[in-house]
Amino acid sequence: MTEICPLMLKITVNAIFSCLKTIMDRDNKSILLRELLSFMQFLFKDRGEGSLLNEKLHSYIEGLISERNPLLTEMENYASVHHVPIMELAGIETMLQLLRIHRSHRILEVGTAIGYSALRMAYALPNSQIVTIERDVERIQVAEQFIQRSELSHQITLIKGDALEVEDVVKEHALFDAIFIDAAKGQYKKFFEIYSKYLKDDGMIITDNVLFKGLVAEPEIETKRIRNLVKKINEFNHWLLNHPDYDSVILPVGDGVAISKRRGESK
Amino acid sequence: MTEICPLMLKITVNAIFSCLKTIMDRDNKSILLRELLSFMQFLFKDRGEGSLLNEKLHSYIEGLISERNPLLTEMENYASVHHVPIMELAGIETMLQLLRIHRSHRILEVGTAIGYSALRMAYALPNSQIVTIERDVERIQVAEQFIQRSELSHQITLIKGDALEVEDVVKEHALFDAIFIDAAKGQYKKFFEIYSKYLKDDGMIITDNVLFKGLVAEPEIETKRIRNLVKKINEFNHWLLNHPDYDSVILPVGDGVAISKRRGESK
Repeated sequence: MTEICPLMLKITVNAIFSCLKTIMDRDNKSILLRELLSFMQFLFKDRGEGSLLNEKLHSYIEGLISERNPLLTEMENYASVHHVPIMELAGIETMLQLLRIHRSHRILEVGTAIGYSALRMAYALPNSQIVTIERDVERIQVAEQFIQRSELSHQITLIKGDALEVEDVVKEHALFDAIFIDAAKGQYKKFFEIYSKYLKDDGMIITDNVLFKGLVAEPEIETKRIRNLVKKINEFNHWLLNHPDYDSVILPVGDGVAISKRRGESK
Repeated sequence: MTEICPLMLKITVNAIFSCLKTIMDRDNKSILLRELLSFMQFLFKDRGEGSLLNEKLHSYIEGLISERNPLLTEMENYASVHHVPIMELAGIETMLQLLRIHRSHRILEVGTAIGYSALRMAYALPNSQIVTIERDVERIQVAEQFIQRSELSHQITLIKGDALEVEDVVKEHALFDAIFIDAAKGQYKKFFEIYSKYLKDDGMIITDNVLFKGLVAEPEIETKRIRNLVKKINEFNHWLLNHPDYDSVILPVGDGVAISKRRGESK
């Protein structure tokens, strides 16, 4: 297990030795202990955020991904500045590759946000049609502006409303080759159940955030809201991987991506 | 970055505080420092081995994978006892899912070993035909026995010889929907160049071990042999991700899996 965060551990160990050395050299030991404590708190403060992999490996993989065009880069910056959760780089590259391999043409996306993933799909799959659902009025406006500027609006249909309520609108665009679920994490099972009805026999469903920053594997979670959410994601994962009609795997890329393939063809 | 190995860090921090406490309470500080040092060495000793993920997350994902049939379990045990490198569980599940999504029927495998992955493919894709190459005489014998016992030998063709030398035999079985490269890591580029000639226009190539236990992201590697191998894998990864005819991504599953899709259809 120790190979995971060598940099982190090097820093920690260096800190320990430097603290110990100072303790050896000084008399007032309790002050040093307090200093070490606050250093430790600093190290631990952003626990639960960031990548599932160690930093070096994460950077290695991201370093191999090519540059995006200026509009997409602008969207990435917008998302970062305005704290809009868009899919992580390695996660989205994986999703696009799965869509290429599957040769998906008609795609349903639950959760447009600012339209980043929809536009990534439209660029990567020039013959695709993307139907995407968003309920947040502000994000819809931003998404519409970006989509218009991309000149790919002929590939994207934006449905405005709560994904739990717009089934009747969506089904006019069915059937879909692939469905991409990236919206309210507590509702994944419902989204899956509602929209898998409109998936082709050999279709694929991709679900984002199923490892939720690694928290699904944590036995103890302090915040009640997060604990409940993790419980729901865990239940979804077990339900999904035991679903009789789908073969599924979970990939530790981005925030954890589940890939489910309907057994229509090979069953 | 600190969320990566919370268990590890908890142990480390607990150790620091317990050591510090003892230092405070005792006089002979240098002995304590030596004890802490040896504890640190213990923590660091297996750095570079094992999973790319932290142990809990790795177990979480493996825990969601269903049981294999008795023959496959026997093969897993055989591989473990005889130190035959077969693909890691999460890696093979991902590969099978990619083959399902791609709807591959004709598959070429470079590196049979004891036939585990070939049999996993045959079970997962009942309509598939697998051509698999192995040069090690002992492993060929073991593979043949397992394949015979599986009663899936009608799906598997075993070509005996060095993958660098049996092109003429392999091409009689072409074209392939998918190629799976899992043999001598130093030869990946050659294998790719030789056999991609026999891949269909929208075919997929899967290459295992491209993150090599995370070593590709390590700046300093002690052993010369390992350092050279890592250099070759690094060169292969950069070459692959910049190849004009393929879209590729690297997944941090198992020992690192590269997925390349020929741009035949969408280019």
